[in-house]
Amino acid sequence: MTQMSQLPVEFAHIEAAAGRLRGIAVKTPLLAFPALDRKLGGRVFLKPETLQIAGSFKFRGAYNRLSQLDAAARRAGVVAWSSGNHAQGVAAAAAMLGMAATIVMPADAPAIKAARTREMGAEIIFYDRLTESREKIATALARARGAVLLPSYDDPDVIAGQGTVGLELAEQAAAAGVTFDSALVCCGGGGLIAGVAIALAHTMPSANVFAVEPTGFDDTARSLVSGKRETVDPEARSICDALLAPQPGELTFAINSRRLAGGFAVTDEEVRDAMRFAFTDLKLIVEPGGAVALAALLSGRIDAEGRCIAVVLSGGNVDPGLFASIIA
Amino acid sequence: MTQMSQLPVEFAHIEAAAGRLRGIAVKTPLLAFPALDRKLGGRVFLKPETLQIAGSFKFRGAYNRLSQLDAAARRAGVVAWSSGNHAQGVAAAAAMLGMAATIVMPADAPAIKAARTREMGAEIIFYDRLTESREKIATALARARGAVLLPSYDDPDVIAGQGTVGLELAEQAAAAGVTFDSALVCCGGGGLIAGVAIALAHTMPSANVFAVEPTGFDDTARSLVSGKRETVDPEARSICDALLAPQPGELTFAINSRRLAGGFAVTDEEVRDAMRFAFTDLKLIVEPGGAVALAALLSGRIDAEGRCIAVVLSGGNVDPGLFASIIA
Repeated sequence: MTQMSQLPVEFAHIEAAAGRLRGIAVKTPLLAFPALDRKLGGRVFLKPETLQIAGSFKFRGAYNRLSQLDAAARRAGVVAWSSGNHAQGVAAAAAMLGMAATIVMPADAPAIKAARTREMGAEIIFYDRLTESREKIATALARARGAVLLPSYDDPDVIAGQGTVGLELAEQAAAAGVTFDSALVCCGGGGLIAGVAIALAHTMPSANVFAVEPTGFDDTARSLVSGKRETVDPEARSICDALLAPQPGELTFAINSRRLAGGFAVTDEEVRDAMRFAFTDLKLIVEPGGAVALAALLSGRIDAEGRCIAVVLSGGNVDPGLFASIIA
Repeated sequence: MTQMSQLPVEFAHIEAAAGRLRGIAVKTPLLAFPALDRKLGGRVFLKPETLQIAGSFKFRGAYNRLSQLDAAARRAGVVAWSSGNHAQGVAAAAAMLGMAATIVMPADAPAIKAARTREMGAEIIFYDRLTESREKIATALARARGAVLLPSYDDPDVIAGQGTVGLELAEQAAAAGVTFDSALVCCGGGGLIAGVAIALAHTMPSANVFAVEPTGFDDTARSLVSGKRETVDPEARSICDALLAPQPGELTFAINSRRLAGGFAVTDEEVRDAMRFAFTDLKLIVEPGGAVALAALLSGRIDAEGRCIAVVLSGGNVDPGLFASIIA
């Protein structure tokens, strides 16, 4: 108990986040596919955060943080940096709360992601990825405007918001009369999996939570082994644009180092295979970074035989051209 | 009551079907998308039968029929004709029940649909669409083998099975605390919508059920107006391969003529728009025929402002090449 109380986020924070998100965020369903169960010889349950507001779990953490601001702070707006899902999650949450949102985005970000973020009412500030620092630009902007700066993972309220995915997993498993042996969750900076791990440690302590990362970006898996925050080789590349954080977060790793059972890495080709499987057999759109946990399952990184496994599909914001080239 | 008792399928049949399908078919979720609600100014709930076993609602009717056969009849197998969703639904249901399935399919059916049907263990007999009659071939085969012949819509057990979609809609609406003003359901031969209409007439009588058909294949809409079973112009074409029945079924029209509030037709371009919207905003794969009800909503055939509307997404079995060409 002493150890649990030292973590930067506790179960009570996640319960409070769930209260704030009730009737606001989508309670994404827990899906079973009998043909998948037969294929793997176990029971698999998918949690499609692809169906969440703005197409990924990121809305949960953003709304949990922003909804706690007082009226004056809301008037000052929010600043964040992201080229993808966090940008859209922040933009959607800010719009709901009547706040101005400014997103610092690389000038070479996919046009569609910039367009979607702008559609939700956010202002976009582009920067040059090679010569400028997004952190510095965003921090200076936030200071000048008195706006809140919203990190994409290393923030207790963000982690607690993402943890509501784990709370729902436990509630939905109970309703289905099952207990998970394992949960597979993607890991970039580690905010989603940290929140899920805290929620499951409390509600379903027998479930082992595994991080899944792209090959070359398995910094969390390596950090779990070494016990310290390892970094990513700057030359590493992956199609999983949502999972390219250079290092585990400080807060997230403080949680993940104590709560995770281990980590797996999957190749881009395994990710493409999982996206194709999701298209042909599940009829779900999953983006590359959202498909890594499914890829780990389908490629046999974890044996599902006789087991009950939860898999989080974390997002579905994929460029139509890329998606078409993968399935066709 | 006298009138209801004259219908070929009654509510009790649907309840019995639900009992047979419990724990076997997927109870597909009822999905809400806050951004869609804001866009339309109403409340919309989507029922994605794309997530059903074999990728469409067809499994429900097939399993309801086949699971009632005795051991001897099961040993003799099942014969059906279909180039698409019914083929896969029958093949999946037969495989679960240990029955041999034979599907009569046009020689020019999409290779992927034949492959998927064969993967589920069915035997495929090809015929020449121009010179041969699938009905005659299938009937002769069934007679020679003593096998049951399973129609794709004009059968009371098939209609009752599909009606479990409506039963779930009503249960899930009650759980969400809403009542539908209208339900939009695709219509080919009319089996799904007939079952849904019977279920809703009993559980949620205030809901108006509307048929949605492809332009040129709006035989049910025209038949509702004329009061008799109208036929489709043999020259008509549509990308909605699941909805090309030449005429309303005899049993289905006996139901639909009394239970439907009307019908809408949507163009192929509106269907493509709906499929793209499902990709970008809903992250769901929907086949052309499965997207017509959504297309009717998005194109304004029915006004959602201030209303609560259920939309059935009936199937997701779409060729990857076609899907890629539509989204890209």
